[in-house]
Amino acid sequence: MDYRDRLSSLAKKKKAMTKEAVGEKRSFSGKDYQDPPPEPLFDAAELGKWSFYRALIAEFIATLLFLYVTVMTVIGYKSQVDPTLNPDQCAGVGILGIAWAFGGMIFILVYCTAGISGGHINPAVTFGLFLARKVTLVRAVMYMVAQCLGAICGVALVKSFQSAYYTRYGGGANGLADGYSIGTGVAAEIIGTFVLVYTVFSATDPKRSARDSHVPVLAPLPIGFAVFIVHLATIPITGTGINPARSLGAAIIYNKDQAWDHHWIFWVGPFAGAAIAAFYHQFVLRAGAVKALGSFRSQPHV
Amino acid sequence: MDYRDRLSSLAKKKKAMTKEAVGEKRSFSGKDYQDPPPEPLFDAAELGKWSFYRALIAEFIATLLFLYVTVMTVIGYKSQVDPTLNPDQCAGVGILGIAWAFGGMIFILVYCTAGISGGHINPAVTFGLFLARKVTLVRAVMYMVAQCLGAICGVALVKSFQSAYYTRYGGGANGLADGYSIGTGVAAEIIGTFVLVYTVFSATDPKRSARDSHVPVLAPLPIGFAVFIVHLATIPITGTGINPARSLGAAIIYNKDQAWDHHWIFWVGPFAGAAIAAFYHQFVLRAGAVKALGSFRSQPHV
Amino acid sequence: MDYRDRLSSLAKKKKAMTKEAVGEKRSFSGKDYQDPPPEPLFDAAELGKWSFYRALIAEFIATLLFLYVTVMTVIGYKSQVDPTLNPDQCAGVGILGIAWAFGGMIFILVYCTAGISGGHINPAVTFGLFLARKVTLVRAVMYMVAQCLGAICGVALVKSFQSAYYTRYGGGANGLADGYSIGTGVAAEIIGTFVLVYTVFSATDPKRSARDSHVPVLAPLPIGFAVFIVHLATIPITGTGINPARSLGAAIIYNKDQAWDHHWIFWVGPFAGAAIAAFYHQFVLRAGAVKALGSFRSQPHV
Amino acid sequence: MDYRDRLSSLAKKKKAMTKEAVGEKRSFSGKDYQDPPPEPLFDAAELGKWSFYRALIAEFIATLLFLYVTVMTVIGYKSQVDPTLNPDQCAGVGILGIAWAFGGMIFILVYCTAGISGGHINPAVTFGLFLARKVTLVRAVMYMVAQCLGAICGVALVKSFQSAYYTRYGGGANGLADGYSIGTGVAAEIIGTFVLVYTVFSATDPKRSARDSHVPVLAPLPIGFAVFIVHLATIPITGTGINPARSLGAAIIYNKDQAWDHHWIFWVGPFAGAAIAAFYHQFVLRAGAVKALGSFRSQPHV
Repeated sequence: MDYRDRLSSLAKKKKAMTKEAVGEKRSFSGKDYQDPPPEPLFDAAELGKWSFYRALIAEFIATLLFLYVTVMTVIGYKSQVDPTLNPDQCAGVGILGIAWAFGGMIFILVYCTAGISGGHINPAVTFGLFLARKVTLVRAVMYMVAQCLGAICGVALVKSFQSAYYTRYGGGANGLADGYSIGTGVAAEIIGTFVLVYTVFSATDPKRSARDSHVPVLAPLPIGFAVFIVHLATIPITGTGINPARSLGAAIIYNKDQAWDHHWIFWVGPFAGAAIAAFYHQFVLRAGAVKALGSFRSQPHV
Repeated sequence: MDYRDRLSSLAKKKKAMTKEAVGEKRSFSGKDYQDPPPEPLFDAAELGKWSFYRALIAEFIATLLFLYVTVMTVIGYKSQVDPTLNPDQCAGVGILGIAWAFGGMIFILVYCTAGISGGHINPAVTFGLFLARKVTLVRAVMYMVAQCLGAICGVALVKSFQSAYYTRYGGGANGLADGYSIGTGVAAEIIGTFVLVYTVFSATDPKRSARDSHVPVLAPLPIGFAVFIVHLATIPITGTGINPARSLGAAIIYNKDQAWDHHWIFWVGPFAGAAIAAFYHQFVLRAGAVKALGSFRSQPHV
Repeated sequence: MDYRDRLSSLAKKKKAMTKEAVGEKRSFSGKDYQDPPPEPLFDAAELGKWSFYRALIAEFIATLLFLYVTVMTVIGYKSQVDPTLNPDQCAGVGILGIAWAFGGMIFILVYCTAGISGGHINPAVTFGLFLARKVTLVRAVMYMVAQCLGAICGVALVKSFQSAYYTRYGGGANGLADGYSIGTGVAAEIIGTFVLVYTVFSATDPKRSARDSHVPVLAPLPIGFAVFIVHLATIPITGTGINPARSLGAAIIYNKDQAWDHHWIFWVGPFAGAAIAAFYHQFVLRAGAVKALGSFRSQPHV
Repeated sequence: MDYRDRLSSLAKKKKAMTKEAVGEKRSFSGKDYQDPPPEPLFDAAELGKWSFYRALIAEFIATLLFLYVTVMTVIGYKSQVDPTLNPDQCAGVGILGIAWAFGGMIFILVYCTAGISGGHINPAVTFGLFLARKVTLVRAVMYMVAQCLGAICGVALVKSFQSAYYTRYGGGANGLADGYSIGTGVAAEIIGTFVLVYTVFSATDPKRSARDSHVPVLAPLPIGFAVFIVHLATIPITGTGINPARSLGAAIIYNKDQAWDHHWIFWVGPFAGAAIAAFYHQFVLRAGAVKALGSFRSQPHV
């Protein structure tokens, strides 16, 4: 999702092709990709570039659009199937349509913003990529602020458009459904976010990009599907957070007790899931642990 | 979506590859793409080419098919769930199926016409691309005429096929639902069209095409998804226009007062949304404003 | 969809790249693709190749799987929502699920067979490609025979598996719904098949393939979506044929009067739609008519 | 789906391009790809590599996530439409949503694990690829063990999260629906698995990869769609197994008689379907039988 990884690998590939084209020998038996160096925690140069502020704007707008479209879909659906208003309980887009709204918006927004900001649109994704040292600390914090502000504005738009219905139908806020324990809610958020962030890491793996230069163009589709499918599974339990900005925005604008009860679940769960995904990808799948231990001759055989 | 941008970038890339292959030095540190020059307002040569008239035919046919399939789906759905005809209110494709019909048709029609006309199929898209100087004024106006004529013919086909049901079920016309103010309707159309046109700009960005030559082949999918998802969110409010030709065609053929009340919303909203998307993409994301001010050293760091 | 077009263009492209790499001058201002020569009506050599018979087997198996999965979905859905068996009329996959079954199967079967037989799976598609001289007459006729036999076997499998339900729920046969005239049924089949075959032509255009070598890999998705969306629009009218093998297979196995009444619609409509799509693509979009007339200087400006 | 095939073909292609670039003659009239040699039954070196154990971990985690998300979706849906709890029988994601959960998870999990383990996530797929000699016997057996363990853990998570509902709503276990014979159940599983494994073979065909280096990146989508569509057709009959690990995991955790009755169907059916698909692809489509007989001059004409 982060284009910068990819561009460096493209540049390398072009050089490699040039060399091949003039007939130089090059061994293909070794590692055919190179990890980018980890991002520093602070990078003062970054703050002087327009591209940094542009990325913040893109994250703000994308999260605003995400919350506007998805919460509007939720409120519109609930108003259409309210038995006191409409006897036809099959009207509306259904829970399936709501899941499509979340997943489909992530697909198109990641597609649109990948080249500008990396297309995070979710503090948990930003946190996971920060842990893997793909973004600086400053960038991570600023992205999260932009995402939360965008989410608040997006839900505020829905409230202003749907004044008659917004509060009546729960404001799109996340919360623990009756009959589920706090532990279940946290665990469901952890696993759901793990699925999402694992997909993000798989899609942006520099090893993969080195071999398939067009991976980033295709990556938004599985990332959007991950969000879609996790909603199918988790809506009955927590309404599906897996995105702290989404949960915060809805809670602030709805601002009832039931939105703030257990609100911490929607920060702790996603951040924990993202951290586990980062660990799984970097240490297990990319063999970071093994390299550290030096106990296997893994790389030449990958 | 507009292939001409892409072909020029492909041609450049081929030349670049040739140069690399014979070993010339070329710096990769600078800008690796080049904006095409803005299209003139009038281009007399364009009017002498068969490809111009072919593009008009392609836009006409594509908009005709778009309206035929989508309005047919709407009328068919309403006839299947009418409680006076059928006790099963879950028959029919559902609102979700209607949203798929709109989004899916845009996906396949943009795919089919991208190489011929740029695949607009929507006056708001044409207007946005005109503002960004991607098409000439003459082409923009003629495309809009072709799109509106196509839409009228498409809805007329539905009326002739569905004579028993067409008028009874509202003719697929857009209108403001009960309980929503005019301001809300306009704003919902603006934001919905912004999502669509922002996706179109992202997909046809020459910066992006320069790096991923196959972007245009993949672009129709996120564009179709944008239409799909915006319908999920906006059907309860306005029925979802975001395409003035679609709204005009249905209004002319249905031709009842309720179709013409507030019809202006479906022109002002989409055009305003397209203009904002063009401004956002060209001046914020592509840093046109900054370049004009000259206050940041943005380009070398992008 | 037909890989042979594509391979010839790939071979040309490779040669072109070789020439560029050694620095030869080559003008890019002219036509950058070449139409393959039309296929002859008869090609005796074709009949001596295993690849010809293998293609027939692939078409037979693909059409068998297509009818098996789709008619099974139809019968299963109807058994689940029968109010005499089940009070829950929302059980089952819905009409939307049936439309996905048709479109999704075409997506995966075209993907699987494109490299073997061109992935027709539909006599109307074969007819359209024959009219455009993409396949020989012998191949076209033999494909249609294989497709019809495959369809009959596929529906026969469903009947043997669903013995309790197959006949009760209409056997998946196409027919004109009450309240629609014969003319409407024929016209709906014509337009539906036009949408499908137009998408097929767009996806297999050699002009397009020359520029995007990976188009054929992506082509099955819009083709599948075309089938999906046409079903959303046309199920209420005719149940959606747009594939004479599908209609014939269901009619032969169901074999009731209502399946044979108007059966001709599902041959005449699709063949007429395919012929119009072939004409539109070859003479209007590809400017065959203009080239014949010689009245515009079209090619150098495309 | 298996990246190793592809990488070897990529390496060959790069060498070929190099040769072309310096102007060597190379005939394109013959076979433009090369089959990788069959994998041995045992490969001691494989057992000493970290990548082997990493692949087992990836299969375990992927199957765990697959079962967790899909069975959670099934149980959540059934709790939402239980008429004793909720009068609205249209709540919940529907059977269509359940089918999407299965197909969509396979899409994203194959996408994520293809580069690590080949992305099997299904003992039937592993069995088919073993029969085609794409994986060693040791790897095949160990993958199946990892998949079954992952499936058990995934369903156990659902049971622990959904303690109130898991047993009441059938635990996601497969079984033969009333009114269907054992023969029908076995046959439906055979054909469903055939569709899936046929798609897997088509997507990983080295002949295809040689021509389209990006096929593997796109392959997960049709594979996921195959799972989605087979569920639409087969849920009314067996609930759809086509994956012995999925059926075993649900049966062990649910552990009621009705889950173990006919459990053998969900091993015999998928393995038979995978074997038929392997035979069809290797001997019919790839002409293995013909090559063995030597009776046609097939290869030069393919």
